[in-house]
Amino acid sequence: MSCFEVQAAVGRARAGSLKTRRGVIETPVFMPVGTQATVKAMTPVELREVGAQVILGNTYHLHVRPGEGLIRDFGGLHRFMGWDGPILTDSGGFQVFSLAKLRRITEEGVHFQNHLDGTPTFIGPERSMEIQRDLGSDIVMLFDECPPHPCTHEDAAASLDLTLRWARRCREWWDARPAEDRPLVFGIVQGSGYPDLRQRSAEALVEIGFDGYAIGGVSVGEPEPEMFAAIEAAEPHLPADRARYAMGLGTPKQVIELIARGVDMMDCVLPTRLARNGTAFTGDGTLNLKNAPFARDERPIEPGCECYACRNFARAYVRHLIKAEEILGLRLVSIHNLHFYVGLGLRARAAILDGSFEAFRRETVGRLDAGERES
Amino acid sequence: MSCFEVQAAVGRARAGSLKTRRGVIETPVFMPVGTQATVKAMTPVELREVGAQVILGNTYHLHVRPGEGLIRDFGGLHRFMGWDGPILTDSGGFQVFSLAKLRRITEEGVHFQNHLDGTPTFIGPERSMEIQRDLGSDIVMLFDECPPHPCTHEDAAASLDLTLRWARRCREWWDARPAEDRPLVFGIVQGSGYPDLRQRSAEALVEIGFDGYAIGGVSVGEPEPEMFAAIEAAEPHLPADRARYAMGLGTPKQVIELIARGVDMMDCVLPTRLARNGTAFTGDGTLNLKNAPFARDERPIEPGCECYACRNFARAYVRHLIKAEEILGLRLVSIHNLHFYVGLGLRARAAILDGSFEAFRRETVGRLDAGERES
Repeated sequence: MSCFEVQAAVGRARAGSLKTRRGVIETPVFMPVGTQATVKAMTPVELREVGAQVILGNTYHLHVRPGEGLIRDFGGLHRFMGWDGPILTDSGGFQVFSLAKLRRITEEGVHFQNHLDGTPTFIGPERSMEIQRDLGSDIVMLFDECPPHPCTHEDAAASLDLTLRWARRCREWWDARPAEDRPLVFGIVQGSGYPDLRQRSAEALVEIGFDGYAIGGVSVGEPEPEMFAAIEAAEPHLPADRARYAMGLGTPKQVIELIARGVDMMDCVLPTRLARNGTAFTGDGTLNLKNAPFARDERPIEPGCECYACRNFARAYVRHLIKAEEILGLRLVSIHNLHFYVGLGLRARAAILDGSFEAFRRETVGRLDAGERES
Repeated sequence: MSCFEVQAAVGRARAGSLKTRRGVIETPVFMPVGTQATVKAMTPVELREVGAQVILGNTYHLHVRPGEGLIRDFGGLHRFMGWDGPILTDSGGFQVFSLAKLRRITEEGVHFQNHLDGTPTFIGPERSMEIQRDLGSDIVMLFDECPPHPCTHEDAAASLDLTLRWARRCREWWDARPAEDRPLVFGIVQGSGYPDLRQRSAEALVEIGFDGYAIGGVSVGEPEPEMFAAIEAAEPHLPADRARYAMGLGTPKQVIELIARGVDMMDCVLPTRLARNGTAFTGDGTLNLKNAPFARDERPIEPGCECYACRNFARAYVRHLIKAEEILGLRLVSIHNLHFYVGLGLRARAAILDGSFEAFRRETVGRLDAGERES
């Protein structure tokens, strides 16, 4: 029996439910990013209020600080940070390749110095699984190599083969453990911008067999059409009865277009990162709340929005807070932006369930496009 | 009929109630500081949850940014920042003398350049009252000159006389307005470290007649005994049926000792300022949560505390957040620290009402002293 069930579909877009040991996740779903055991500036209560069903934690960051041993002894990441819903942990692969210094890649794994204090560290497939187990993750990602962009076909193929060998070791590590101790374990499709490699990666991972499949190595600097092409190259080769997760994506429009291409799960730092700069997401595009026209604007960030910020405060006040560099300003915009992103998933799901997804997609993308043209 | 009523007293300490147009404030009361139309990092809901009855706004800061005209047109500071309880506004005097550049003091008022962009500005007694009126303040402070510390008797006396002339102009400005439009207006006792001047200031202000009396020019760098001496020099000359407010004070122990000396209202930036550095206030003194011994400490910041932070998170987690420079860390410590400070006022009030204040004072100060000796 699969942990994922498709309840309705419109074209490639699906509404489904993913069963984890800490509850069911209804998809499509946007997952807030909690890199360092906190979704930036948000309490767990506020995460529930914006509708978050599942959040991310990061293996690399938590290994470096405060260390997975401390969190394990504490009873796991859920108890440590006060979040009782499902947690998905990234494997650390992406951060080892984007943040760490003096990397040396071997068949065993990756030797590197961490970005904080340069401590020499090793993470390989088994070590990454151990760390994610110690964190108490409900959805574990396999440890992958992330090739840079751009990347030759030859380099991408060699990297992909290494990732596949690591994928087998991750699978074997979990298979050696009692079934009742196992979280969901997701494979990660690589292959850079090469459709043949994306297909080979997807097929090989499916043969190994995972509880779900992520598409990685996207949003690494490539143009948007290439990103969509990578998703489209992988998707037909992934089983219909497994959840698909596009890692680190994307803008609101990309979220809708990914859902239209059969993606069920997404995560992105944009809502909280841009909030800290005073940029709010709305159905009509982004607003830079620092701009002078908002100084006396009595409307909420997004009229009609039901989030705490929009129910209680005007753009003029939020602008004042951002200009005055007050923490409450970025808090209010973070709440709104996460509510907006989580809402994209919820509205897409409702539209798939009632068969109106194509109209929803046209209308939503059309409004976002019109808003961006204006601004 | 006075706006202030004493319900019980133990020695000089009083439990009272101060009636404002936005509700009754039960005293002794600690008032969180919301300089720029926000108590740093806190929402209005969170302020209610820590027990705040009244908060401060700042005339100088709000005049400079976003401007009192914008706030007035918005319907006042309460609506702008979403706080429906009483607001006390400082007159701007203290900031003009501590922050602004190129000051020139005349009989009329003070010409200066603001600290943000150097815009030439004038604030005098009438202008300060206008700004506080535009903000919609419920408790208005008169505009005073704040002499530096140390200060000769001659300079302190001259400054005090100017402040008294300004006090008369503030009183006249309000007397020319309809009684129903008037907030409470508080005088400010000055006189530096000279008991004779403190007495002269208090007596002259009482003769002019205000709704309450603040003691200003304290906590400006003088030693603690001198601060207490200034309070003690003023207090006997203030009417028993008016509230007394010690401006900008103090440490938890000072708060208790001020209450013991007949002070009803206090404000201080310490709880939020030190929170941003990871320092928590407890009944046993301060904790620097960055310190290594807290890395695996499963206890809440203060065992037994009922604040949101202590009900939900361990010191180990808060330490991790502070070390990782995560905003949630300073949010949790701010919540705890404000809950602690507001709680000091509430517990002192309960002890005065049931006659046990002297035992409460001994026990509370004793624990704080013992904690500081240990740390």
